[in-house]
Amino acid sequence: MGQLYGTVTPEIVEKLKSIVGEKNIIFEDKAKLQEYGMDTLSLITGIVAEPEVAVKPESTAQVSAIMKLASSHKIPVTARGAGTGLAGSAIPTSRGIVLSLEKMNKILEVDTVDRVAVVEAGVITKDLCRKVEEYGLMYAGYPMSTESSFIGGNVATNAGGAKVIKYGNTRKHILGLEVVLANGEILQLGGRYRKSTWGYDLMETIIGSEGTLAIVTRVIVNLIPGGGKILDLIVPFPDTETVVQAVSKMIVEGNIFPVAVEFMDKLCLTMSAKHHEITLPFTDREDVEAYLIIQLHGNTQEELEAIYEKAGELCLENGALDVFAAESRRDSENIWKVREEYGPGLRLLGKQVYNNPGDVIVPFAKVPEMMRELRKLGEKYNTTIAVVAHIADGNFHTLYVKPDEVPPEQWIDYAKKVYEEMTEIALRLGGVGSGEHGIGLLKKDIFLKSKSPIEIEIMHGIKKAFDPDGILNPGKII
Amino acid sequence: MGQLYGTVTPEIVEKLKSIVGEKNIIFEDKAKLQEYGMDTLSLITGIVAEPEVAVKPESTAQVSAIMKLASSHKIPVTARGAGTGLAGSAIPTSRGIVLSLEKMNKILEVDTVDRVAVVEAGVITKDLCRKVEEYGLMYAGYPMSTESSFIGGNVATNAGGAKVIKYGNTRKHILGLEVVLANGEILQLGGRYRKSTWGYDLMETIIGSEGTLAIVTRVIVNLIPGGGKILDLIVPFPDTETVVQAVSKMIVEGNIFPVAVEFMDKLCLTMSAKHHEITLPFTDREDVEAYLIIQLHGNTQEELEAIYEKAGELCLENGALDVFAAESRRDSENIWKVREEYGPGLRLLGKQVYNNPGDVIVPFAKVPEMMRELRKLGEKYNTTIAVVAHIADGNFHTLYVKPDEVPPEQWIDYAKKVYEEMTEIALRLGGVGSGEHGIGLLKKDIFLKSKSPIEIEIMHGIKKAFDPDGILNPGKII
Repeated sequence: MGQLYGTVTPEIVEKLKSIVGEKNIIFEDKAKLQEYGMDTLSLITGIVAEPEVAVKPESTAQVSAIMKLASSHKIPVTARGAGTGLAGSAIPTSRGIVLSLEKMNKILEVDTVDRVAVVEAGVITKDLCRKVEEYGLMYAGYPMSTESSFIGGNVATNAGGAKVIKYGNTRKHILGLEVVLANGEILQLGGRYRKSTWGYDLMETIIGSEGTLAIVTRVIVNLIPGGGKILDLIVPFPDTETVVQAVSKMIVEGNIFPVAVEFMDKLCLTMSAKHHEITLPFTDREDVEAYLIIQLHGNTQEELEAIYEKAGELCLENGALDVFAAESRRDSENIWKVREEYGPGLRLLGKQVYNNPGDVIVPFAKVPEMMRELRKLGEKYNTTIAVVAHIADGNFHTLYVKPDEVPPEQWIDYAKKVYEEMTEIALRLGGVGSGEHGIGLLKKDIFLKSKSPIEIEIMHGIKKAFDPDGILNPGKII
Repeated sequence: MGQLYGTVTPEIVEKLKSIVGEKNIIFEDKAKLQEYGMDTLSLITGIVAEPEVAVKPESTAQVSAIMKLASSHKIPVTARGAGTGLAGSAIPTSRGIVLSLEKMNKILEVDTVDRVAVVEAGVITKDLCRKVEEYGLMYAGYPMSTESSFIGGNVATNAGGAKVIKYGNTRKHILGLEVVLANGEILQLGGRYRKSTWGYDLMETIIGSEGTLAIVTRVIVNLIPGGGKILDLIVPFPDTETVVQAVSKMIVEGNIFPVAVEFMDKLCLTMSAKHHEITLPFTDREDVEAYLIIQLHGNTQEELEAIYEKAGELCLENGALDVFAAESRRDSENIWKVREEYGPGLRLLGKQVYNNPGDVIVPFAKVPEMMRELRKLGEKYNTTIAVVAHIADGNFHTLYVKPDEVPPEQWIDYAKKVYEEMTEIALRLGGVGSGEHGIGLLKKDIFLKSKSPIEIEIMHGIKKAFDPDGILNPGKII
């Protein structure tokens, strides 16, 4: 579009200083600015873009003042959460101002009658989860990165994690947003209610827009009753088709919605266990090709046991080779460590591994076909494709192992080609290119290719409606 | 905005005829055209607007052809579902073409593995519910008007009903939409998956937009396992504060999410029971001011009984005067007849009654304050305000009884003033003007007043992005 952006002059730096205070501004320290120019994608691909200045406002009023200043000078502003994003949305490719929400980290209120918490955007998701637990409540919208990600970032990417099958993704748990528009105006959207039809839903439009439409400063989240008992299972299967069948039976016939149903292929699980020096059952069985890690929840011990019995039976009746139930907290921790930190395991192969930040979705019924396609894709590119999946959501995370014949300096580009073809397959199967990470920089090209011109035109129209000068996180999504 | 619209000439009628066929067009029969110029709001307020022509396409391709024709002549098009809307969204105030979806009423697929149904927009919600029951599944997004409303209309208004507290409103159960844009282009949005973050979510933006952004032709809905047992309760309370307390304890402490928690005040319940010649318990008790009608669900009889025991206890511990559990199907039917068809009861007072199509929301914690405000409002306007509420959602339906001193011909305008003041109170209490009916014509003025100029500007921008010539349902919402 050839936007002409302003630059951050010393005068603007002075004005920013007067807004956020000396201690909340970074503008000469190159190393620090680099830190504010990267997110988790940078660690995988090396993409970094140093902002001209980074500011850490402490209030919505300060965010508003920053945006008024930026918009009057047409300076790009990239809102930044914890930098845990995997798509590069927080990388300020047009430089300008990085606006970090890290200082806006207060949990303002937990209301047990309305069942909501009101939090600033920079609250670490896990802090929110822990706080509401004190009230016997639960924030169910959290992603896998809960230990580090900010709630505002979860909203910006419409995050999800292992527990979407039972509770739904972030969008399902957001009731209200305070946002600052590009021009500095503050909007209150939604509220302490779970039902509304009151004009175009700007809140729903902003969720998942990766900081390109508005800056989220405050969030009202839905809480549900917490407590109850959980049980973790490992279930080995001879192949993926069987896995899909068993999960389907468990949900539809058994009416069992596990908290999590995680798929790991043999390679991923065994290598991760080896890396963590954890012994898991069934890893020495020759006939096992895939594992499910299942977390069940019951409000009481009896309810949990009944669910476990039924779930176990349905798995065994539908092709599972065995069922192992964690007997201790230690067992559970081990199982989840192997699942959550699976990345390093494959390094034991002694080869370069690309931890694909893509996270395609296919309809659940197409999971077996996707698995077959991945095998073919691996053969075509002579790479081992290891799979970890939120299987009930049809959501795939993959790792690619570098073939010997590919020179190290070409590996990332090579891996990206594999990733792009994988995304094309998912789209062809009726899926979508990202389940929980977003588009950012990483998927922009393939995203634009996947949409019709009219859809992109409508998206540009929406962008323009919110941010006429295009100063919010330029170059992302569209 | 002073749009200049085209009119439906005889040539255009001929072209429309060639698209939908002679039998699917209405253009000279005044009485028929009147029918296509009204919805349920018309029955309450008398507002009707006769379209120039009404068409009943049988396929998405026909809808697309109609829109191409309409857009090339800038003729307004108002999409029409079952006409059960209470806000006047289906009333074609700019005349032009009414596009009725009634012939697009096929349930195309029920997929038990992906747990979705794919249906045309004109499917009656209840037909979808019945169909998926055959597969042991449930469509949980249905509103109270399920017997007559179309699924497309539910999407257009983001409908809700008594069961939102457990299952969420329509938005929560829509996975995909096929829509036809103003220019006739067809878009497929979302799909057979429950998790995605893939650019601005046009589907979420369209849900609840009352036919002003696009015409919904096909819907992919989420299904959940069905079956189980239900039990209906009537619980009498001495006052509203106590009701709120009991509901709160039931949900937060008891971790019980009833399928429905319906509030009826004494007047509404007793008069409705009288009208239907149904004897309900506790109606002769002097100390009762309010009733809850609660529907509980358990996967098994034992689970249901455990839930019932806990719910009953929590109600009694928190101020309920008694608990009655329906002992037969007949009991249940009677309870729900009194609740669902409460409108006619008040007519026994022998006075004109305004069945307020407004449906404000307040945060749950503000329900007692809203009740007090309604009493004051009733005193101010010398009208009895009878209340039926989806109380756990803070969602109010009300009826106003005409005071003797107000002349009949002034009654509707008088009642509207009461309604507007009621909406202002709800907004002041942190609520919203509509929980499930939408804005349409009825609430447009108060909606526009409730929003800041920048919000309205953004909404106009969104409207323009989808429908640059403003031909889709002009004059509604904004």
